[in-house]
Amino acid sequence: MPDAGNDKQSSAPRRGFPDQEFVNRTTRAQALMEAQGLDALLLTTEPEVRYFSGFLTQFWQSPTRPWFLILPKQGKPVAVIPAIGKECMARTWVEDIRTWSSPAPDDEGVSLLAATLLELVGPNGAVGLPEGPETHLRMPLGDYRILLEWLPGIAIQDASAILRSLRQVKSEAEIEKIAYICDLVSGVFEDLPGLLHQGMSEIEIFRRFKIECLKRGADDVAYLVGGAGPGGYGDIISPPSNRPVAAGDILILDTGSIFDGYFCDFDRNYAFGHASDAVKRAYAAVYEATEAGLAAAKPGASCSEVFAAMQDVMDRAGAMGNDVGRLGHGLGMQLTEWPSNRPGDETRLEPGMILTLEPGMTFEPGHVMVHEENIVIRPDGAHLLTRRAAAEIPIIR
Amino acid sequence: MPDAGNDKQSSAPRRGFPDQEFVNRTTRAQALMEAQGLDALLLTTEPEVRYFSGFLTQFWQSPTRPWFLILPKQGKPVAVIPAIGKECMARTWVEDIRTWSSPAPDDEGVSLLAATLLELVGPNGAVGLPEGPETHLRMPLGDYRILLEWLPGIAIQDASAILRSLRQVKSEAEIEKIAYICDLVSGVFEDLPGLLHQGMSEIEIFRRFKIECLKRGADDVAYLVGGAGPGGYGDIISPPSNRPVAAGDILILDTGSIFDGYFCDFDRNYAFGHASDAVKRAYAAVYEATEAGLAAAKPGASCSEVFAAMQDVMDRAGAMGNDVGRLGHGLGMQLTEWPSNRPGDETRLEPGMILTLEPGMTFEPGHVMVHEENIVIRPDGAHLLTRRAAAEIPIIR
Repeated sequence: MPDAGNDKQSSAPRRGFPDQEFVNRTTRAQALMEAQGLDALLLTTEPEVRYFSGFLTQFWQSPTRPWFLILPKQGKPVAVIPAIGKECMARTWVEDIRTWSSPAPDDEGVSLLAATLLELVGPNGAVGLPEGPETHLRMPLGDYRILLEWLPGIAIQDASAILRSLRQVKSEAEIEKIAYICDLVSGVFEDLPGLLHQGMSEIEIFRRFKIECLKRGADDVAYLVGGAGPGGYGDIISPPSNRPVAAGDILILDTGSIFDGYFCDFDRNYAFGHASDAVKRAYAAVYEATEAGLAAAKPGASCSEVFAAMQDVMDRAGAMGNDVGRLGHGLGMQLTEWPSNRPGDETRLEPGMILTLEPGMTFEPGHVMVHEENIVIRPDGAHLLTRRAAAEIPIIR
Repeated sequence: MPDAGNDKQSSAPRRGFPDQEFVNRTTRAQALMEAQGLDALLLTTEPEVRYFSGFLTQFWQSPTRPWFLILPKQGKPVAVIPAIGKECMARTWVEDIRTWSSPAPDDEGVSLLAATLLELVGPNGAVGLPEGPETHLRMPLGDYRILLEWLPGIAIQDASAILRSLRQVKSEAEIEKIAYICDLVSGVFEDLPGLLHQGMSEIEIFRRFKIECLKRGADDVAYLVGGAGPGGYGDIISPPSNRPVAAGDILILDTGSIFDGYFCDFDRNYAFGHASDAVKRAYAAVYEATEAGLAAAKPGASCSEVFAAMQDVMDRAGAMGNDVGRLGHGLGMQLTEWPSNRPGDETRLEPGMILTLEPGMTFEPGHVMVHEENIVIRPDGAHLLTRRAAAEIPIIR
């Protein structure tokens, strides 16, 4: 095998961001913080810390150490992190980096965090913490309780809305990274019929797909789910099995592959040998539902309207419901981000938002058909970042 | 390229576990719960839920939906999960599966969870929640607060110690999975000098390594960090760069690759063209430190003693410290698990524990040398799961 492709030899976007990207994010956040009366944001999860710092490392997979980033109401963010991360953080635009020697389960950064917060916001400051839907606190709950005891005058407020409104509108530099991984993986999906054949197991198929994505320049295939079954599949979140695929099987692969910390999230369907009329009709229905979603996803439209446009097509095609609870979602530094295309989500689309359109329906008992494309909202409407799925289900001979 | 290896054609362990594995885990947990006076455990993170259920999916990467598993003081665990996971959970040994349609940010499973807890433990029950070091609560903090308001009589207690004591001793079936991925990746590392050459960028090297692991049967290379630099490297957690490696560079790759939900975690070092005497001495020192760790890691020894055995060798070799804060850690369903080989960790080694031995030292300003092997503790001492690193640093011509 020749060497895997190098960024330098391809059309890959430049890695990282100019500092101005972080200036913009910080400035926008600080304006929203001022409106909410917050003296600082306290951030603990990978995407939140990375969003304001550029700190990119897989080291988050170790649960041992918490990492903290404090965004004061003025100036750059302040990092309160384990010493092992100092050199990596020092390469970002962050200048004020405070470290403790970790692991230290008796005081895992808590006293350093408390002292830093006290210095930045005073004893009675208002600190924003993401506490709402789709968030969590990535530090031990016991340590959080100690922090609050040590800072009795600090008022914690939910800051989810600030993070959400910032992150759901992407910069052109972010869009470029997502567009790149979407296009790259689209090519893999298009060429997949030539790489797969009957008799391969699901495990082999998943492996072949991952290798092809890596060869073409994906950094990681962090998320790959799917499955195959005779006449259709019923479960889209399980890992692959050792079962060999055979004529009549319908296969779905749904991937979140990554370039420079940014995800694509879309799927493709294939039939081995042949597809039943029921499968072809279901494929056509979700294809048409996607078309309706593309037409509906204009600036000013709500996510619930985008949902309704897609669901209407599937209802008319005899959809028996689905268990996903939404027909697409935001996308970016995480596989799924706010908002959701579902009834009740009245988020208005704005230029710069990146969404998945993910119509799915049960077309006969136990058999689901799910399509997914990734789009960016522009002033004139939705632009595809993925290359559109084939209009008819591809047959793998 | 021929098809990637299939589990069926190799020596891969059987995937999943017999139900008895979960019976054993549950029974042991319930004995510890009784000793602590707990009526149930409430679990929210991927490894905790998987440990008692066998629920394996990459779907956790989406932050949208919380997942709950309740382990009552008697009987099987009860799953309280989004409907999208019902079919996948139904394949496990769990029988009582309660679902809600998600996303539903106005009530993201909170009322169903509250009702289920109330039913299982009563209005004044004692519920164990992991709140200690290396844990977090994977649900929105705001929802957790609502849950507590709705269940005012429930007493929450820290259950970290229960989870820790169970998970740190592995079953033979768990050991088999970890041994398999350790051996597989050892082979990749051994063959790496034939796959790399000067002029490749770090990004290309990482990509080549990942593809080789996948081809040989790894499910995922979920964690790969490292780097190369002239005469040594200084940062072991950053992503790779576009810089081409050149004669005199020292390269480290540190991987957490996965088979069936279980990790290896070890590294290897290489020199391009030649290695300085300082590098060779540092390599020899950490190699000898690992030998000392292997000799010290016997049942009954403490993690701090294992640390001291390794640190002593490096101190005598002129180590200038390191920023890692420990010289190895537990390993299993996560890249790093409790305990840590560090001063103050008095955890006593027991047969069935799996640990990394990870001596690292700064050998000259800005240059670190880190070795890592994976071991299982047996009645007669440490057994290597990784194939031992070369006694001298391999040279890539």
